[in-house]
Amino acid sequence: MKKKVGVILSGCGVYDGSEIHESVITMLALDREGAEMLLCAPDVPQMHVVNHLTGDVAEGENRNVLVESARIARGSIRDVKSVTADEIDALILPGGFGAAKNLCDFAVQGSSCSVDEGVAALVRAVHEAGKPIAAVCIAPALIARVLGGDHPSLTIGSDYETAEALENMGADHITCPVRECVIDEKNKIITTPAYMLAQSMSEAADGIEKTVRELIRLIGS
Amino acid sequence: MKKKVGVILSGCGVYDGSEIHESVITMLALDREGAEMLLCAPDVPQMHVVNHLTGDVAEGENRNVLVESARIARGSIRDVKSVTADEIDALILPGGFGAAKNLCDFAVQGSSCSVDEGVAALVRAVHEAGKPIAAVCIAPALIARVLGGDHPSLTIGSDYETAEALENMGADHITCPVRECVIDEKNKIITTPAYMLAQSMSEAADGIEKTVRELIRLIGS
Repeated sequence: MKKKVGVILSGCGVYDGSEIHESVITMLALDREGAEMLLCAPDVPQMHVVNHLTGDVAEGENRNVLVESARIARGSIRDVKSVTADEIDALILPGGFGAAKNLCDFAVQGSSCSVDEGVAALVRAVHEAGKPIAAVCIAPALIARVLGGDHPSLTIGSDYETAEALENMGADHITCPVRECVIDEKNKIITTPAYMLAQSMSEAADGIEKTVRELIRLIGS
Repeated sequence: MKKKVGVILSGCGVYDGSEIHESVITMLALDREGAEMLLCAPDVPQMHVVNHLTGDVAEGENRNVLVESARIARGSIRDVKSVTADEIDALILPGGFGAAKNLCDFAVQGSSCSVDEGVAALVRAVHEAGKPIAAVCIAPALIARVLGGDHPSLTIGSDYETAEALENMGADHITCPVRECVIDEKNKIITTPAYMLAQSMSEAADGIEKTVRELIRLIGS
């Protein structure tokens, strides 16, 4: 039986959605590990649209998180609300500002952020079913918000302020180099800094590929 | 000295822009081969915007090819018109409908298509300077249009109708399996089918990674 891994996307583009490199590298690593993917995203408006050439907010533009995520998914994607924990063996969240703007509002509210209901429900259900969860880049902030009560060991790299916000939500922050990942065996949670630290694509890719291998390992057989 | 490779993007999303997987896999392969990248795209409106969730054209929506390509480039991208052949050692074009809708109009006009002026000028100048060019998926159609006079050997996989259109533009079409690439040593042109044939990401990736290795080899030292 192929392992089936849920991937939660948050739009399409580092500044207002999923980090595209992290998402594709995650998906390719899953495919090369022989896993099947179930891509999903919330069917909600993006917090905003950022012109990625100038870095400015595109005033008056509106885009939908699920519709834009479908670009990375080549159309094969579902509303996260329709996904249940028993459909998948594990879950992974790539990063990008979308993880902190669209899946939750950590980018604005910090440690007092709230999380999209569908995303929070799926993360909680997968964790309660004893299945592993991985999070990349800034997405561990969302994991800290939802699962902070279990005091998971997490990394967002080495940024002091962000690490402190994760600790305020109950997580134990571990500093981690870009090509590595942090594994919380007890909580079955794996995290890697990726573009929180990466200076090149291959740095991010090395950490993500390790994360995906560990995620598959934690599924067991 | 690091090799510097130009990458021409055509938007962000398989149905109206660059195929995202092909673009990221190309870029990661270049990075892992130790090459530097110069990303570029034409500063023109997209032919149209496609809702990638439904597959329908989003009526009334307008997006710019350079601005959307900047999502894949994380902001580090230039107008293709400003790029000269002496800045780069080689050139590569990922696929996606954008290559046949925004870089040229092959998707509409077939073998009588015309090519964006800036893109055509760069392809021609790089070729005339004796530097290698690679093209992925449907992008070889554009190469056939610009360089058909040199009768390059190219592949778009195995689709009969598309292959015939390439031959009508002067190319010699070679059928090629998805995990391989076609190398025209004389013209220094390398092509691979990717999502013209791929049933999975790793199939596309194997062919693209080979293509990038051959591209770097053809640069020489």
